[in-house]
Amino acid sequence: MSIHSVKIVNILEGLLVGNDQAAARNKQRFSDAGVLTINIMSSPGAGKTSLILKTLAAVQGKARIGVIEGDIAGSIDTEKVIAAGAQDAVQINTGGNCHLEANMVDRALDTLDLAAFDIMIVENVGNLVCPTHWALGEHLRLCILSTAEGHDKPIKYPQMFVTSDAIILNKIDLIELVDFEREFFYASVRALNPEVPIFEVSCRTGEGITAWADWLLGQRGIVGSRQSAVGGER
Amino acid sequence: MSIHSVKIVNILEGLLVGNDQAAARNKQRFSDAGVLTINIMSSPGAGKTSLILKTLAAVQGKARIGVIEGDIAGSIDTEKVIAAGAQDAVQINTGGNCHLEANMVDRALDTLDLAAFDIMIVENVGNLVCPTHWALGEHLRLCILSTAEGHDKPIKYPQMFVTSDAIILNKIDLIELVDFEREFFYASVRALNPEVPIFEVSCRTGEGITAWADWLLGQRGIVGSRQSAVGGER
Repeated sequence: MSIHSVKIVNILEGLLVGNDQAAARNKQRFSDAGVLTINIMSSPGAGKTSLILKTLAAVQGKARIGVIEGDIAGSIDTEKVIAAGAQDAVQINTGGNCHLEANMVDRALDTLDLAAFDIMIVENVGNLVCPTHWALGEHLRLCILSTAEGHDKPIKYPQMFVTSDAIILNKIDLIELVDFEREFFYASVRALNPEVPIFEVSCRTGEGITAWADWLLGQRGIVGSRQSAVGGER
Repeated sequence: MSIHSVKIVNILEGLLVGNDQAAARNKQRFSDAGVLTINIMSSPGAGKTSLILKTLAAVQGKARIGVIEGDIAGSIDTEKVIAAGAQDAVQINTGGNCHLEANMVDRALDTLDLAAFDIMIVENVGNLVCPTHWALGEHLRLCILSTAEGHDKPIKYPQMFVTSDAIILNKIDLIELVDFEREFFYASVRALNPEVPIFEVSCRTGEGITAWADWLLGQRGIVGSRQSAVGGER
């Protein structure tokens, strides 16, 4: 709307081209290693870390999980996911940046051995806007919305819902307490992204976690596997 | 952290200088008109619009309120606040921008008669990060956190809590259901901003709204009043 915004948009366009190139290199690196990578995005406090902790428990023994944690400051999430059974994890502190960028993930990968993982979970900075523009090299994008945030969020933050490969409606245990209109929410999401799978879960009670985790495990087939990359043999 | 981030930070510094100048002009305009202006910031769904609706009811007959609504898309909030008794309201759609900027508020002011208001409430885009950098011309900054977002948000998004003149802890009716550790939250906020007033409210039940609204009404004294500007007489 303002002159400043137009300037930022134009400058960003150039930066986003560079970011997309770095993201493509990351994605190749993940695919070559046969590691399914998922970029988890949500508002602050919608439940990204809680979902990761529940997912780690649900896939224990079925897949080896790595976690890249993005935060403006702090490392308490990384400590939590390692304690909960992640194969390995690394913290990125963005130092004020409101989203992760592909170059940050590239540097994080230098500290991890991709051969040790089947799935890499990247937890973005809590923000429903900016992360949608910055690809990281992920195969899948997940958006988490909590019922406490309200059913109108797809209307106010459409880009997040348009670009997601799966949506989790978290804190389903609170739905009756927060005036969340389920029909309005589903209709809004379907108007933006007709086929996207929506999982209703509660990271607090565990409801719905198995269905989500099974779906995630089933997505590993979309990644170019190690054996096909080297000629059909494991 | 990345080269891209450094570039953005440098470019932003230049833009922020221009924004600060535009914000100073807006602030002078508000002060000359004797209108106390407050910039309300929070994550998506923490309760900005709900708080505005409750505040409108609580100050009815005591102050005339104008509202500037910032959203990436949609105008449902503006319709709500006018129905709830705002003197006038205007919607800014940022078209993808994750925060309001001073120039956007400048343009919005061209559509409003400041003589009609005692208090102007500006609802920023839902985002705990970027709005902290972009002054709009406000006299006061309010941060709303909902209990459902979790007690760790001051650690993860410190700048928002450092720069706020008041903090509202909303959805206090849910506090027992969401494992929110009140002591941890207060200690984290106090470490960043020792004197900031914190109001515990529920926009759903109305709890705490009167105390908050009384505080807001009491802040009108910080603005250069109309009578002093024209020589001491009302």
